[in-house]
Amino acid sequence: MKATIHITLKNGVLDPQGKAIENALGQLGFGGVNEVRQGKLIEVDLDESDPAKAEAALAEMCEKLLANTVIENYQIHLNDA
Amino acid sequence: MKATIHITLKNGVLDPQGKAIENALGQLGFGGVNEVRQGKLIEVDLDESDPAKAEAALAEMCEKLLANTVIENYQIHLNDA
Repeated sequence: MKATIHITLKNGVLDPQGKAIENALGQLGFGGVNEVRQGKLIEVDLDESDPAKAEAALAEMCEKLLANTVIENYQIHLNDA
Repeated sequence: MKATIHITLKNGVLDPQGKAIENALGQLGFGGVNEVRQGKLIEVDLDESDPAKAEAALAEMCEKLLANTVIENYQIHLNDA
């Protein structure tokens, strides 16, 4: 089973990388961009075929390694059931 | 209109960061992980409210700045219509 994990900064946490992208877009002439925030996308291919077990394992991976839960949120998306 | 852009390495492009995560998960005792690949997630808040125009503008941003289209693919997801 494949899954995609979205790791994003929590609201209120400064995101200088996103701000840099926002400024660069402005300099390239793209108007109407209110905010840009950058996060991480992690694609995991698991042996586990049970969606509930896969999601539980992925949540544990996020808590222990993938996300810094002090400043980051994570969302798990299973790609095929 | 808010949009989320997924930027991932093309198939065949080596991903040492993904490999490092894969090894770290193994060392933490997570079994059954076949492959991990890391990409980028960019959240953009645009003034544009027409979905077709927003998507066109985002595609141009990806081509010009956000993605290195030699080695990366991008996918645009509009979050609200």
